[in-house]
Amino acid sequence: MSVRQNRQVRLKSRPSGIPQAEHFEIAAAPPPEPQTGEFVVRNRYLSVDPAMRGWVGAVANYAKPVGLGEVMRARAVGEIVASRHADYRVGDTVVGWLGWQEYALSDGRGIIRRVKETDIPLSAALGVLGMNGVTAYFGLLEVGQPKPGETVVVSTAAGSVGSAVGQIAKLRGCRTVGIAGGAEKTRLCREEFGYDAAIDYKAAADLDAALAAACPGGIDVYFDNTSGAISDAVLRRINKRARIVICGTASLASWDPWPSGPRVERHLLVKSARIEGFLVFDYEDRTEEAVAQLAAWVREGRLRYREDVLDGIEAAPDAIAGLYRGENLGKRLIRLA
Amino acid sequence: MSVRQNRQVRLKSRPSGIPQAEHFEIAAAPPPEPQTGEFVVRNRYLSVDPAMRGWVGAVANYAKPVGLGEVMRARAVGEIVASRHADYRVGDTVVGWLGWQEYALSDGRGIIRRVKETDIPLSAALGVLGMNGVTAYFGLLEVGQPKPGETVVVSTAAGSVGSAVGQIAKLRGCRTVGIAGGAEKTRLCREEFGYDAAIDYKAAADLDAALAAACPGGIDVYFDNTSGAISDAVLRRINKRARIVICGTASLASWDPWPSGPRVERHLLVKSARIEGFLVFDYEDRTEEAVAQLAAWVREGRLRYREDVLDGIEAAPDAIAGLYRGENLGKRLIRLA
Repeated sequence: MSVRQNRQVRLKSRPSGIPQAEHFEIAAAPPPEPQTGEFVVRNRYLSVDPAMRGWVGAVANYAKPVGLGEVMRARAVGEIVASRHADYRVGDTVVGWLGWQEYALSDGRGIIRRVKETDIPLSAALGVLGMNGVTAYFGLLEVGQPKPGETVVVSTAAGSVGSAVGQIAKLRGCRTVGIAGGAEKTRLCREEFGYDAAIDYKAAADLDAALAAACPGGIDVYFDNTSGAISDAVLRRINKRARIVICGTASLASWDPWPSGPRVERHLLVKSARIEGFLVFDYEDRTEEAVAQLAAWVREGRLRYREDVLDGIEAAPDAIAGLYRGENLGKRLIRLA
Repeated sequence: MSVRQNRQVRLKSRPSGIPQAEHFEIAAAPPPEPQTGEFVVRNRYLSVDPAMRGWVGAVANYAKPVGLGEVMRARAVGEIVASRHADYRVGDTVVGWLGWQEYALSDGRGIIRRVKETDIPLSAALGVLGMNGVTAYFGLLEVGQPKPGETVVVSTAAGSVGSAVGQIAKLRGCRTVGIAGGAEKTRLCREEFGYDAAIDYKAAADLDAALAAACPGGIDVYFDNTSGAISDAVLRRINKRARIVICGTASLASWDPWPSGPRVERHLLVKSARIEGFLVFDYEDRTEEAVAQLAAWVREGRLRYREDVLDGIEAAPDAIAGLYRGENLGKRLIRLA
């Protein structure tokens, strides 16, 4: 390994809401050198995720906040280029918590899995076979528990998680209804991801009426990536024993202090319904089970995915803000040379 | 059977909030005469329940609203005094949807069970062995799923449901914390119902601090009978994977339109926690299973209960409003001569 430097994206200041380009800086560190029990990964793709907003916030989240000056926490996939670790060899491809940087030093603890699907593009290890696909798989199947014939509604339905949720629900025999913003995303929902109906919430004059039309039998499962007005409208139309999976809260600008909304208790009571939060990290030890099924569906052409690939580490600082501007169609990744 | 009249409590007008005495009228009907396949029950105890408020509202609930001029829907327990039904004999004691009246005509459809626990007072069939006990049993065990060592918080903790929840949670090896209004109720929580700690929410200057002190290990299960400010305070202190059982919403004056409160989505997400509505009616086919266990605990002295018995059908019209005024200690019943 003869690397002259390791460029890293570090957290420069702490945003109160959505992290912008100005909250990060790109800096060069010396190339990492593995000690005994360590190895070095050359990252090929860096992941960009809506959840990153929570990881850099000052408010306690499900994970310790990224410290100021630290490399931005991120999943990445790459090849091992140097190793003094007995279990990891040069040439192995791994995915894990390798950070927004060109080269990552690891002792194996942040590694999630070895990538063995050589017939599927490497980038998929961060999306449909990575956090997004695994989130869709366990969030829908374990928490949502859809049954054949039920109606499943998904918000951010064309996104990297939502599009997988819709397709998996369809594979389970459900009627699927996607909610997305804009004509292009709703077209993708119908034509690419097989939703039975898609609602453009930005164009709908009356979201309640649009939901009623798309869900004549009510709503049994709601996979919620947004919270806010979309979720409130869905909630009003749930069936008895409905299951609502809270996977994301993209529509909320801030949650400190907690925003206000309609109280759900009475409605949950009369419907014997459930709202449950889902974190994919709770299922990390079952990752292989999900990836095996997801990869099989991808190979069979039954699970499609879109990617939005940005080139070069210079694209990273603004990449999260871009997600919240809604500029991507599909899983956002940063490709390194 | 030589009855001259059957006094009934009928819904006279529809309340928008909590039903008051003025919304009912007492009227006399001719005594019922059973036709083939029917029988007549002489009611001995009528049940008074907070849920009745929902049954008389104009807004769609989990059940069809009681019609104007109809006998008030209620559970009651009594003896069969006349029968032309093959399965029900004169002298049998039954509990069921017999209404706020002295005599009820039935074809068996509203009957929930025969009362066989002759060693336990008959009134218990409407409380600790009736809707309240069965609600506590399934709501806590099936929805709350408490595990030994976990902390279970109960609101309206000295009430007929809450007191049973606290004791069952204790029997399952949990730390139990009751929230109730007033010194007498919190004393009952500690001394009669075995709560490890009890909080008087009316006297607590700082409910958050009181909860923190009573729940040093956080909250794993919350059995919610109130909604509102009490529930908001509990929610802030839940642990990872907490389960919140929505059984009642006593603190909400009205739910049309939906009241506002803090949005729960983000908090449920970061805690991988769940809020689920519970209706005992969903478990009616499993009533005997619950009653058998509850009766065993009552006989062993491990499940205590309190009753608040009003005498005479004249007490019925104001009895629901009285519950919401907080004037009862224990399960409210109306005893008929």
